[in-house]
Amino acid sequence: MASAGPASEFFEVCFLPSGLRGTVARGTPLREAARSLGLEIESLCGGRAACGKCQVRVLEGESAGHVSALSDAEARARAAGRLGVQERFSCQARVEGALAIYVPEASRVGRPIVRKSASERECALAPAIHKYFVELEPARVGEPRGDWDRLHEELCSRFGLDVALSVDPVALRTLPETLRVGRGQLTVTVWRGREVIRFEPGFHERALGLAVDLGTTTLGALLCDLATGTVLAQASTHNPQIRWGEDIMNRIASANREGQLALMQRSAAEAIGELARDATLAIGATPADVVELVVVANTVMHHIFLGLDVHSLGVVPFSPTVSRPLDIKARELGIPVLPSANVHLLPIEAGFVGADNVAAVLAEAPHETDALTLLIDIGTNGELVLGNRRRLLSASCPTGPALEGANIRFGMRAARGAIEKVRVDPATREVRFRVIGQPRWSDRILPGDIGALGLCGSAVLEAVAELFRAGVIDRTGRLYAEQPCRRLRQGTDGMWEFVLAWAGETAIGKDIALTQADVRAIQLAKAALYAGSRLLLERFGAPRPDRVVLAGAFGSVIDLERALAIGLFPDCGLDNVTAVGNAAGDGARMALLNVVAREEAERLARRIEYIELSTTPGFNDQFVAATQLPHAEDPFPSTELRWSPHAAPG
Amino acid sequence: MASAGPASEFFEVCFLPSGLRGTVARGTPLREAARSLGLEIESLCGGRAACGKCQVRVLEGESAGHVSALSDAEARARAAGRLGVQERFSCQARVEGALAIYVPEASRVGRPIVRKSASERECALAPAIHKYFVELEPARVGEPRGDWDRLHEELCSRFGLDVALSVDPVALRTLPETLRVGRGQLTVTVWRGREVIRFEPGFHERALGLAVDLGTTTLGALLCDLATGTVLAQASTHNPQIRWGEDIMNRIASANREGQLALMQRSAAEAIGELARDATLAIGATPADVVELVVVANTVMHHIFLGLDVHSLGVVPFSPTVSRPLDIKARELGIPVLPSANVHLLPIEAGFVGADNVAAVLAEAPHETDALTLLIDIGTNGELVLGNRRRLLSASCPTGPALEGANIRFGMRAARGAIEKVRVDPATREVRFRVIGQPRWSDRILPGDIGALGLCGSAVLEAVAELFRAGVIDRTGRLYAEQPCRRLRQGTDGMWEFVLAWAGETAIGKDIALTQADVRAIQLAKAALYAGSRLLLERFGAPRPDRVVLAGAFGSVIDLERALAIGLFPDCGLDNVTAVGNAAGDGARMALLNVVAREEAERLARRIEYIELSTTPGFNDQFVAATQLPHAEDPFPSTELRWSPHAAPG
Repeated sequence: MASAGPASEFFEVCFLPSGLRGTVARGTPLREAARSLGLEIESLCGGRAACGKCQVRVLEGESAGHVSALSDAEARARAAGRLGVQERFSCQARVEGALAIYVPEASRVGRPIVRKSASERECALAPAIHKYFVELEPARVGEPRGDWDRLHEELCSRFGLDVALSVDPVALRTLPETLRVGRGQLTVTVWRGREVIRFEPGFHERALGLAVDLGTTTLGALLCDLATGTVLAQASTHNPQIRWGEDIMNRIASANREGQLALMQRSAAEAIGELARDATLAIGATPADVVELVVVANTVMHHIFLGLDVHSLGVVPFSPTVSRPLDIKARELGIPVLPSANVHLLPIEAGFVGADNVAAVLAEAPHETDALTLLIDIGTNGELVLGNRRRLLSASCPTGPALEGANIRFGMRAARGAIEKVRVDPATREVRFRVIGQPRWSDRILPGDIGALGLCGSAVLEAVAELFRAGVIDRTGRLYAEQPCRRLRQGTDGMWEFVLAWAGETAIGKDIALTQADVRAIQLAKAALYAGSRLLLERFGAPRPDRVVLAGAFGSVIDLERALAIGLFPDCGLDNVTAVGNAAGDGARMALLNVVAREEAERLARRIEYIELSTTPGFNDQFVAATQLPHAEDPFPSTELRWSPHAAPG
Repeated sequence: MASAGPASEFFEVCFLPSGLRGTVARGTPLREAARSLGLEIESLCGGRAACGKCQVRVLEGESAGHVSALSDAEARARAAGRLGVQERFSCQARVEGALAIYVPEASRVGRPIVRKSASERECALAPAIHKYFVELEPARVGEPRGDWDRLHEELCSRFGLDVALSVDPVALRTLPETLRVGRGQLTVTVWRGREVIRFEPGFHERALGLAVDLGTTTLGALLCDLATGTVLAQASTHNPQIRWGEDIMNRIASANREGQLALMQRSAAEAIGELARDATLAIGATPADVVELVVVANTVMHHIFLGLDVHSLGVVPFSPTVSRPLDIKARELGIPVLPSANVHLLPIEAGFVGADNVAAVLAEAPHETDALTLLIDIGTNGELVLGNRRRLLSASCPTGPALEGANIRFGMRAARGAIEKVRVDPATREVRFRVIGQPRWSDRILPGDIGALGLCGSAVLEAVAELFRAGVIDRTGRLYAEQPCRRLRQGTDGMWEFVLAWAGETAIGKDIALTQADVRAIQLAKAALYAGSRLLLERFGAPRPDRVVLAGAFGSVIDLERALAIGLFPDCGLDNVTAVGNAAGDGARMALLNVVAREEAERLARRIEYIELSTTPGFNDQFVAATQLPHAEDPFPSTELRWSPHAAPG
């Protein structure tokens, strides 16, 4: 600073609300002054008064002439209504004396945003993507350097990007046309300060990112504005891989068959492309505007999505090919978005505990509290994390798809027409239920107007809990009744079943019943979750968790009281159980918006201790014991089914 | 070192022939000892006595027991004849006392190799590719990390690779199968210490690289062993882009037409694939074994090869889209070699002076001498570099393809049957010539056995020089004779022509003649080269070069005396003119074998001052003046053609 001028040419400048202050040479633009004190003010245009991002307000000193007069660019912006009467562009206004400057939140780099998810955790913005507006002079005769070389120099000198900055070769192909159309003015999209991935003619502020939860059964995506963190649109679709099997083990078996892996990979990539198309269409953009993706998935979906052989995931010791986080070009994976966009895959924990679980932990942050948290992510596979600030354990439970309504005779997805709630009168064993899309219970509607189509996962669980409480299911899970009941009958295949909806109440023209096999499927699922939870608690050396967090779509719709009643997870008091919805999707969004969260995810994945349940001594006994239903208020003795066929409905 | 043990446990070890010496702790393997003194000894297996690369000889100290006894691995290797009786594996033998060790050249990293090219410059080996042999333990139950993660740790800890080491996603797909087939033993190919690009089961030492000179008319490739620098095979082919035009300007025009650029890009990539196939076939390898490529090309070929719009290369100021060096995956460019192989493109100088010229300068190194060198690379375009240690100037001359035998009525490539040498008797104006594939001159063979097919570039040039000396061409380039000559005649199109071979001496059944238009084409080409050279000399402030280096296939076959006779380039005495063959290809090979040479190329490209001739005042006058042929011993006055038709052959 010694060479900048005499001592009298330095003035004290204070920035609010941070309170940062220091002395700055006369003539320094306010944005530079802030930076010299360690405060970054937004700028997309690199100080050309083009983007309007760097606005500040002069609180003190303006009337005393301590700030330079309005520049031409500022005057034009104010006339056009782009610059308020009290605001200045901090790239234009210069220090001429002591000043106090207010930096509004919108102008601060790294401002906090509030997540729209259940947990409401704050997430700072630090996206992988930054955009820069550049004006490139036309090449002169005798200029030996290429356009990209001159642009590279401009990006490095004006915006301080590293000289190792490279350019994606596919993006490079668009540079000549971009320069022609924009007459030298262009917006450059840079990934992690390292690589240019897009050239657009003129000034374009918006950058779109897509956070994808690639589930075994469904895919969900959030389209985000990477500059603000706002969720602009959502989209979801079925996983088209369902034709290769409903659960993970079937997918592995299919992928092991000659030529299927590549087809399965492509179908996942195309499904993500579909989500990108639907979500961008909703806001008038195109998939090519999606410049960054984060994908979370369980280990098997993750590997298939990468085109990786999953053979080793199907046999002991269930070892993945890769667990570290990866960044891969969208075009390498065949996702129809911006070809040069990067797809970030969060790390895998181990075995079946995948990147989706890492994302859920990232979002729910059990490692940031002292309370012992049991995080249960119920999808086609159940994933458990137990821990607190001190230690984190995880396990994967083979719940099967019953809790999602699959492999259930009348099971269906949680869509319009699905029965989602079930109540059984313990005295009469009569049933009322509620159908998705109908605000009223079935006993308040004319039977012909109910239009039930089947049972979604939550209804199956509730039915089991209600029938258990009503004494129609005993502790071993058998359908049973001491007295005749017209809803309990033997089906044509000889299997016992309990009718929940009569044919006249459905849109399918036949009775919707819960079968003995359905009850068994729920028992196995709940036994897997319960025994897994117990085993983690034993490992942790704690009798019970302080709180239970249910993640996943299923976790949001089930009746927690009834879930506890059948022993879906260890009891810690209903008040300490919360359902947080799609925590994996929330975590994916955090990683999309913040590269620091990606690093945190990597640390978490390494830190979480994975317990392989299937090879852990004692798990099988725990599992068998947990298939039993706990005593209800009015327990039934665990005896043989004492039922006579005359009780069947006539 | 303080904690390694008492002072008496350190011994002096000296390595020859380098003479490096220092003290080393007892028990240190010799290879480690060398490394601690700054000397790298080869190793592919990371010190497992598997590769046999690290052999050394103990010169002093062995009989005194100053080196550890033969290890089991060494004993086995010696029994198998893989380890000489005087040699030791430096990864196995340990320091037990003072030693003098000889490190043979084959064991030294960075040993010099001798280039097989005309210039015979030495080139140190420092390839971008290194291979590592790893044995990966099978995953254990409860191991949370993926195979790649465990391999990554092994590579970093055992071989000192940077933890930022990444893996190419396409290569990653081969890891599970590689581990299965190799039962955990695999060879990992790493690019620039940064990225794994190949997994092979078991131990594989050889790594192949391809240096490609992508010319406007022909492509040449050298297949090299990246570990030794040896050229294993060569291949060449025509540039299939010829169907889009013979010269650069026509290619630009074609590429500007809708949809053509992508086709042209693909045809270049496929042609390189063809070279890779031919060259690898010759040594029993496959294109998938090619793990690194270097491609040099002029600016237009370079841009088309990258799929870059070439519109701006066709109009003033002829600015390229990119001039910096690039590394791009082979699969991104569609080259059918190892999909994860990188293609390195040397930098472009400016305008039409491309990466091929940078490569030629790299190979001929005018910047390393005091002598003022004029480097002329004659291809479809002529490229000039003039300079020395102090300064380097370059220019591009639009010679047209005449010197390559194109755009000449009976022109053809320098292939079997082409007339390559021509002599005209100044007294009788009778002609004798030599055909490629025939060791004798035409006057020593029966006419019916000659089988001439056409004229290659050198023959056209020689014919012009000989006819000028014989007085059949005057200073302005007109075909002319004072006395009747049966070979000089007017063709059916009215154009004057001089018959070089009578129909009976050809395999095409008609007279092969040099036409007036052919002479004009040669005049224009030589004028461009001469005027360009003159202009560079003026800029440099030197009257003449100290030496002239002719590069390119044409430069190797022309008769230097006759080239000087017609003034193809400034005279500096025949002794100071050398032809070096394909200097661009040599430079490409240097860059393939040595990453330091790539950096040198980048510095050269930035350093060479490019002179745009077409916009330089005075160039046109120089050019017009240079179309004149210089006075021969017996000059003809520059007058109108005085020729009468009765002299035509009957």
